[in-house]
Amino acid sequence: MATLTSTEWALARRPVGLPQQSDFEKKTVEIGEPGPGEIQVQNSWMSVDPYMRGRMYDRESYVPPFQIGETMTGGAVGRVTASNNPDFQVGDLVQSMNGWRTAWVGDPASAMAVKLPGDTGLPDSAFLGVAGMPGLTAYAGILRVAELKEGDTVFVSGAAGAVGSTVVQIAKIKNCTVIGSAGGPDKCAFVKSLGADHVIDYKQAKGAEGLVAALKEAAPKGIDVYFDNVGGDHLTAAIEAARPMARFAECGMIAQYNETGTPVGPPNIIQVVGKQLKIQGFIVSTHADMQPAFLADMAKWIAAGQMKFQETVMEGIDKAPDAFIGLFSGANTGKMLVKLG
Amino acid sequence: MATLTSTEWALARRPVGLPQQSDFEKKTVEIGEPGPGEIQVQNSWMSVDPYMRGRMYDRESYVPPFQIGETMTGGAVGRVTASNNPDFQVGDLVQSMNGWRTAWVGDPASAMAVKLPGDTGLPDSAFLGVAGMPGLTAYAGILRVAELKEGDTVFVSGAAGAVGSTVVQIAKIKNCTVIGSAGGPDKCAFVKSLGADHVIDYKQAKGAEGLVAALKEAAPKGIDVYFDNVGGDHLTAAIEAARPMARFAECGMIAQYNETGTPVGPPNIIQVVGKQLKIQGFIVSTHADMQPAFLADMAKWIAAGQMKFQETVMEGIDKAPDAFIGLFSGANTGKMLVKLG
Repeated sequence: MATLTSTEWALARRPVGLPQQSDFEKKTVEIGEPGPGEIQVQNSWMSVDPYMRGRMYDRESYVPPFQIGETMTGGAVGRVTASNNPDFQVGDLVQSMNGWRTAWVGDPASAMAVKLPGDTGLPDSAFLGVAGMPGLTAYAGILRVAELKEGDTVFVSGAAGAVGSTVVQIAKIKNCTVIGSAGGPDKCAFVKSLGADHVIDYKQAKGAEGLVAALKEAAPKGIDVYFDNVGGDHLTAAIEAARPMARFAECGMIAQYNETGTPVGPPNIIQVVGKQLKIQGFIVSTHADMQPAFLADMAKWIAAGQMKFQETVMEGIDKAPDAFIGLFSGANTGKMLVKLG
Repeated sequence: MATLTSTEWALARRPVGLPQQSDFEKKTVEIGEPGPGEIQVQNSWMSVDPYMRGRMYDRESYVPPFQIGETMTGGAVGRVTASNNPDFQVGDLVQSMNGWRTAWVGDPASAMAVKLPGDTGLPDSAFLGVAGMPGLTAYAGILRVAELKEGDTVFVSGAAGAVGSTVVQIAKIKNCTVIGSAGGPDKCAFVKSLGADHVIDYKQAKGAEGLVAALKEAAPKGIDVYFDNVGGDHLTAAIEAARPMARFAECGMIAQYNETGTPVGPPNIIQVVGKQLKIQGFIVSTHADMQPAFLADMAKWIAAGQMKFQETVMEGIDKAPDAFIGLFSGANTGKMLVKLG
């Protein structure tokens, strides 16, 4: 056993609008040896995710806000370096919520640490993406919340992102027609490579009207399902293009996360009545019961070559704020990750 | 058998904003004797309903638009005056979609005419309200779409209207806490008399912020269900006051029916994600399978004195446009009807 030095990130202050480097504060923390029942872990990967922006506001939400000066949390994968817990051995691969840092010591339960299987053939980082929280988010959202049926016409926004790119592929596996939207030619090419039938470059489409025109061209009969990662104009366009009885899985609204003024709601919300739309928000933890089915399906799909995944990797803990900030300018294709060691 | 003279109403032109008397045109039509399979009916009551405003726009919707110069349609109750159809006898009470006129002749199926039971003890007009389409709308919306559970805290807008007043009472029968909103002291007193635990006068509350304050006072822990007849500020306030996993039955948005500019969507729509709200629109005809259960429950509740209903009656076919226009200024408490004979 030995002590470790952890480099960590805390909020220096609450961001206003788009987060800035100066909103974050780097700390160095000595990580002691594990006490009774505890484990010591060296992280190898950490995740940055759009939902973390919500935790930077001081407000009531489904996860408590980050506190100023305290190391932030989030998904991380690492290896056990010392253990005083019979369920964990040195060298075990563990996933935890103790991200935003290079090492930690503590009670596994408080860290929501779980041992990962060693025999999947997947790279460790996949457990923060396609085989982890973003993957389950896609799976639960499209299959349960949006009630996907074979033959549906499905619109996915943020289709080049970690969640969106998984949704596109699940919908294709289920024999649906898929329209993905993403920003710029490279991401659009990536979405197309995943099997999407139509790809809309929202930067070209310019606003809700442009998106509606592009959707009507791609799906003249309208859409049955909308998987929303973006909100704003995308949501308005999806309501406009929706067929009667369409189902919307509201996963996120990244277009609004840094809004400082009054956001604009969909002006065509009245169509929810006449078209009998179902617009339903969800959080992945509510659907934790789907985890076993998700892992079984995902292993099968990855093995069969039906589920591809891409990562955008920034190297080193110093880059963690950059990686996070980059989510809002679309710097990532697929899962945005920080490689720690 | 004999011919009848029918006084009827057509659209003279499509209303812009709030409908005006001059948007309507009165006609006199000779009603002949029934041909093979047809019936001749003298209407005694006709219904005016907010949804009819939607049919006055020339646009695709779940019901086709009214055509200029053609007699409008809508719910009506009357008695058979001549019959060439073995299923209908002279004197039978029938409900049909041939409203906006005093008499008609034709095929019962095209008119969606059904024979009403004669032994219910209900006044004929009740089949256009609590025991008819508005009643089933309330029943299907609150029980199926909003998935009402015992103990829920339920917010109902338009609570003094035909649908809303029924929703209030069903929710009380199901042991829920009910908050109703209505405009003005008389309507609020009516909603209170139906058993609502709290009543909000939206004319006093003034806007979404006032409604939120009133809702937070009435339901400090938030609402589980919102039955929406109004949209606009009411919808925004309900999103703000919603508890996690709340369900919204979107029945109508009367605040927007006469909108001529760009309507404003709920600016807080992003809360749908974090609170995992379900916002679902519906149309009564989708839930026609609930009709037998609805009639059985409604008969039981009316007999037990648990379901009261009120009507606002205008006398004579000449008053039909006034009655319809009055819906948008809240001229009615309970069901708005036109008595024809």
